[in-house]
Amino acid sequence: MYSVILLGTGNLAQHLFDAFISAPNVKIEQVYGRNAEKLKRFQPQVATCSIPSEIKDADVYIIAVKDDAIVQVAEHLSSKKGIVVHTSGAKEMDCIPIPNRGVFYPLQTFTEGKPLDFKDIPVCLEVKQDSSLQLLQALAQEVSGRVYQIDSEQRKKLHLAAVFVNNFTNHLYHIGEDICQKEGLSFSLLQPLIQETAKKILEISPIEAQTGPARRGDDQSIKSHLSLLKNQKHVELYTLFSEAIKKVYEEKL
Amino acid sequence: MYSVILLGTGNLAQHLFDAFISAPNVKIEQVYGRNAEKLKRFQPQVATCSIPSEIKDADVYIIAVKDDAIVQVAEHLSSKKGIVVHTSGAKEMDCIPIPNRGVFYPLQTFTEGKPLDFKDIPVCLEVKQDSSLQLLQALAQEVSGRVYQIDSEQRKKLHLAAVFVNNFTNHLYHIGEDICQKEGLSFSLLQPLIQETAKKILEISPIEAQTGPARRGDDQSIKSHLSLLKNQKHVELYTLFSEAIKKVYEEKL
Repeated sequence: MYSVILLGTGNLAQHLFDAFISAPNVKIEQVYGRNAEKLKRFQPQVATCSIPSEIKDADVYIIAVKDDAIVQVAEHLSSKKGIVVHTSGAKEMDCIPIPNRGVFYPLQTFTEGKPLDFKDIPVCLEVKQDSSLQLLQALAQEVSGRVYQIDSEQRKKLHLAAVFVNNFTNHLYHIGEDICQKEGLSFSLLQPLIQETAKKILEISPIEAQTGPARRGDDQSIKSHLSLLKNQKHVELYTLFSEAIKKVYEEKL
Repeated sequence: MYSVILLGTGNLAQHLFDAFISAPNVKIEQVYGRNAEKLKRFQPQVATCSIPSEIKDADVYIIAVKDDAIVQVAEHLSSKKGIVVHTSGAKEMDCIPIPNRGVFYPLQTFTEGKPLDFKDIPVCLEVKQDSSLQLLQALAQEVSGRVYQIDSEQRKKLHLAAVFVNNFTNHLYHIGEDICQKEGLSFSLLQPLIQETAKKILEISPIEAQTGPARRGDDQSIKSHLSLLKNQKHVELYTLFSEAIKKVYEEKL
């Protein structure tokens, strides 16, 4: 049985809580958070506390707070024996000022109130002390079938890649919605295309899946599309994407 | 029973063929194509021809060829009585030099050899002669549960929106794959995130779903991400997306 204390009450903390609470060999000892209101969500199931001196002992302390609050929360744990991990894609492991430190980074986008199956979510682990690796791996395997050892440099790159495929992709969806709305068309018209575009790359690589005017070098269609755009940022993005796509396939020739 | 002649043998023609051949009230009279080799795929099931004078009579002629070949193919049909439609998102209906003309535009990305359920694909219709609308609608409803009347101007905008959410999104997937590969990481690490990013907007609007450094106005993370990028086009895209996302949320304040 692995004992865990969760530090944080936000979106990621809630998803981690839901995953660990159903894991057969994990006991959540406590949830710590400064916001008493937000702690209520956890109180029917586990002990909570909002005073650092009341944090109990556990095998693993999981800090699931905003990046710039990690160090401050970790400082409350300096006298603890268990391993202290953060859950951030962007922060180095060594930002935690405690010898027995590590990272437990679930690579996924979590939406408040939308349950996810943790089993398929890649969990990227890093530890400072090799002796803690087995424990952290075993804990991660309690909730996910995809556990990887990834160092801080790799994790930063992975997080950067995630910004492209998640944050920037979502902005493209927003532009699609914006164009539809201005024509009085429902965004739902684009949904099957969006879903299929994502599903396609489960079978073929993005480089093979690329289609469209820029891929074909069809400058007439590009010009005609640009003439339809009113929003200057959309014009710039259209132009830059077309150049970037052309460049990839020119290099391949 | 609606009789249909399909003109074209490429990817879209193949998908349309597979959809119509299973529709109970549709009879594909013939498939026309200049490429005898490509016609072979259709020959076990229907008559084919590669000589324009041998094109039979039918209720509906569906031209599924590259945009710049539409007019040329349509010219073979000038003496026909049925309605002649093209399947392009970008071309105006009026490019067809025949009075009884229209558009049958399925809004989806089609991959050769990957079957799709046509039932969920939005089919955007346009007709020149009102008297042909009912026929084209009935035909479309034989294969799709989502049939819309969309004029040429709206369709152009829809096609433009599709370039953003399909072609440009796929390029972001390519960048994600590129960043992973350079770190010796498997692109499969990003797959759950990519799939969830697409699924998320089935429930919440992209404008609400937006997260990430630019959304938070977190300039330190943006700077740190930019310092990790080596490819100049990726730097430019990261910068432009961050500006564009900031602008959307500044305007909302």
